[in-house]
Amino acid sequence: MTEHNENGRSVSGDQALENIRWNAEGLVPAIVQDAASKEVLMMAYMNRESLERTLKSGETWFWSRSRGEYWHKGATSGNTQKVNSIAYDCDADTLLVKVTPNGPACHTGAYSCFFNEIALNESAGEAAAAPSGSDRFAMLSKLESVIAERHAERPEGAYTTYLFEKGVDKILKKVGEESAEVIIAAKNNDNDELRCEASDLIFHLMVLLRNQQLPFDEVLRELDNRHNKKKNG
Amino acid sequence: MTEHNENGRSVSGDQALENIRWNAEGLVPAIVQDAASKEVLMMAYMNRESLERTLKSGETWFWSRSRGEYWHKGATSGNTQKVNSIAYDCDADTLLVKVTPNGPACHTGAYSCFFNEIALNESAGEAAAAPSGSDRFAMLSKLESVIAERHAERPEGAYTTYLFEKGVDKILKKVGEESAEVIIAAKNNDNDELRCEASDLIFHLMVLLRNQQLPFDEVLRELDNRHNKKKNG
Repeated sequence: MTEHNENGRSVSGDQALENIRWNAEGLVPAIVQDAASKEVLMMAYMNRESLERTLKSGETWFWSRSRGEYWHKGATSGNTQKVNSIAYDCDADTLLVKVTPNGPACHTGAYSCFFNEIALNESAGEAAAAPSGSDRFAMLSKLESVIAERHAERPEGAYTTYLFEKGVDKILKKVGEESAEVIIAAKNNDNDELRCEASDLIFHLMVLLRNQQLPFDEVLRELDNRHNKKKNG
Repeated sequence: MTEHNENGRSVSGDQALENIRWNAEGLVPAIVQDAASKEVLMMAYMNRESLERTLKSGETWFWSRSRGEYWHKGATSGNTQKVNSIAYDCDADTLLVKVTPNGPACHTGAYSCFFNEIALNESAGEAAAAPSGSDRFAMLSKLESVIAERHAERPEGAYTTYLFEKGVDKILKKVGEESAEVIIAAKNNDNDELRCEASDLIFHLMVLLRNQQLPFDEVLRELDNRHNKKKNG
């Protein structure tokens, strides 16, 4: 298949069920990604009917190869996954399912199943340094993932867990406090102080967005839209 | 496997090669994700030797099931993928490879192979549009440039010029106002309002940083340092 357009194209559910190239066992791998943090959470398999059930219910359904049965993710644990979008790839043999997870994806209680990092050897290691230089904002993305992890896993003793446990009022008090501290730091003309307070404000704002289930991407898009509308902004 | 730790754990390349549960054909699926934008780019298969070649070279190598040969991604097109990290999942039968792509991942010329969106029916559709774009944070960088331009050029009629002309007190009043509006929006549980107010707050914070001659990079670095120090942040 070579036809595509760069913004993607939309295919009906029925057409997709025809187009998908199920393997010899009638399955395709389905990659599950957090729509907000964009972390890859897990991979599982779908057959035709589990995709149909997913499309119909708006929550993920897989085919469990080990148990030989349909598997409504989160049916027992409560850690369901609300489907935001589903796409299939250029050769129609893999699905990408973007979800809003209602808790950890992994049966171990981890936010993502991909927690076993392979240590890279040195020749590969050099390459790995790339994003810090090439992407200044990589750490915002990392921070967003850590916040999403804390939100799902609630590790004891973590400050972010404390914020989520205390709830929206506590988080908002911190937003207010940090913005007041930004104002004071600027009035003091103290850039060390301002650097600290501005980063505190951004951190607590990101915790708030997660708590309210508002993807940071939507805020970025809003900023982008405005900038494009008001050219002279 | 149930053992894990929340920050992930590191496994040597040799140990990983032992741990991974290759399927009947000696393969595992390898999900390839852009390390910077976090978009899922493609999925392909690796056997033991292609993983070894990947670890050794720092670029992705797969096993092409259709051609029955090793496939050094980008060897002919130039669209190689520099490996930033590799992880395997809780049951050790899937790899997640984060890369810095040197061009489109897809043979069609598309950035990602997952361009066929399945139209969701209404019940699922509510969940929301998926984030698009190759670099989610590119617009922050663009916005920062526009603010810097306004600061230097002071074009008449631009809101940002107005803020700079009014000076730090006016900018700080806006920071205070927008943070109050963020708090109110969250208390109203109104995510449309919150999206707008959060983007206003970020915009005015960036104007403030420019006005105080504090590079946004220093704030990003501060956030990064803290996150790395307080592992339990």
